[in-house]
Amino acid sequence: MANMDCIFCKIVKGELPAIKVYENGHVLAFFDIRPVSLGHTLLVPKEHATDMLDATPTMLQELSVASQKVAKAMVAGLELPGFNLAMNNGSVAGQIIFHLHWHLIPRHPSDGLKLWPARAPYPPGEAEKIAEKIKASLTL
Amino acid sequence: MANMDCIFCKIVKGELPAIKVYENGHVLAFFDIRPVSLGHTLLVPKEHATDMLDATPTMLQELSVASQKVAKAMVAGLELPGFNLAMNNGSVAGQIIFHLHWHLIPRHPSDGLKLWPARAPYPPGEAEKIAEKIKASLTL
Repeated sequence: MANMDCIFCKIVKGELPAIKVYENGHVLAFFDIRPVSLGHTLLVPKEHATDMLDATPTMLQELSVASQKVAKAMVAGLELPGFNLAMNNGSVAGQIIFHLHWHLIPRHPSDGLKLWPARAPYPPGEAEKIAEKIKASLTL
Repeated sequence: MANMDCIFCKIVKGELPAIKVYENGHVLAFFDIRPVSLGHTLLVPKEHATDMLDATPTMLQELSVASQKVAKAMVAGLELPGFNLAMNNGSVAGQIIFHLHWHLIPRHPSDGLKLWPARAPYPPGEAEKIAEKIKASLTL
C-alpha cells in the first residue's frame, strides 16, 4: 500500500522525477540526489515499508537480488574496484526518508571516504553479556 | 565449498572461536571482534563467497531474511532506536575478510558515530551521464 505523503512512493508512481537505473515488478533503483559518491544509487521496494523491521521477507529477498544486479552493472559501467551497500534504519542511524531503501555507493581508491570510525576490541567478558541479550530476544 | 585459508570458513566449521548469536542451515551470525558499536554483528553465508558479486542469489536471499531476524532481536534485546546494515565490497570499500559478510551496527542517540561525509547535489547533467553508463551495463 502506498503512503500518500511518502516521497519514494511518489517516485515509484511516477509523480515525482528521479534518475532511474533499474526497475522490475518489485524494486525500483534510482539515483540519490545528494550522493556520497557519483553514481550513488538507492533501491526501494515498490510497496511501502518504513524500514528493515517493517519489511516482508519477500521484499528483502527481492531487494537483495536486484541489488546484486545493479551492483554488477555499476561495477562494470563505472569501472569500480569496489562499493558499499548500506541501509540506515531509524533517524538515529541516518535514515531521512522513511521508505525502506538500500544504498549502493561506488568507491574509488582516491575518493577519500572514511565511512567507519576507529574500532577497538571489547573489554573482557563484555561481548558475551551483550550477545546473551540478543540471543534471548530471538524469535523463531 | 569452504576456502581452506578463510577465517570465516573456519568459524563456520568451528575451527576458530566466535561469539555466535544466530545460526540456521545457510547463515551464521557472530560478533565482530572489533566493533563499531557494542553488539556489532556479522552475518555470513556458510558457503564461501568472496563478496556480493560472487554470491549466489540464494545466499543473498538467505542473508536478507536472517539479517531481519537478527536485527529484530538486536533492537529488542539491546533496546535500540536504530541500526545500520552495511556491506563492504572490495578493499577499497573497507572489506578486510574476503568472505562475504553483512554488518549489523547498533545505534544510540549519544554514540557520536558519523558514518557518512557531507553530501552535495550533482552538477547539472552529470547524474544523467553516469546513470547511462550503469544502465548500459545491465544484464537481464
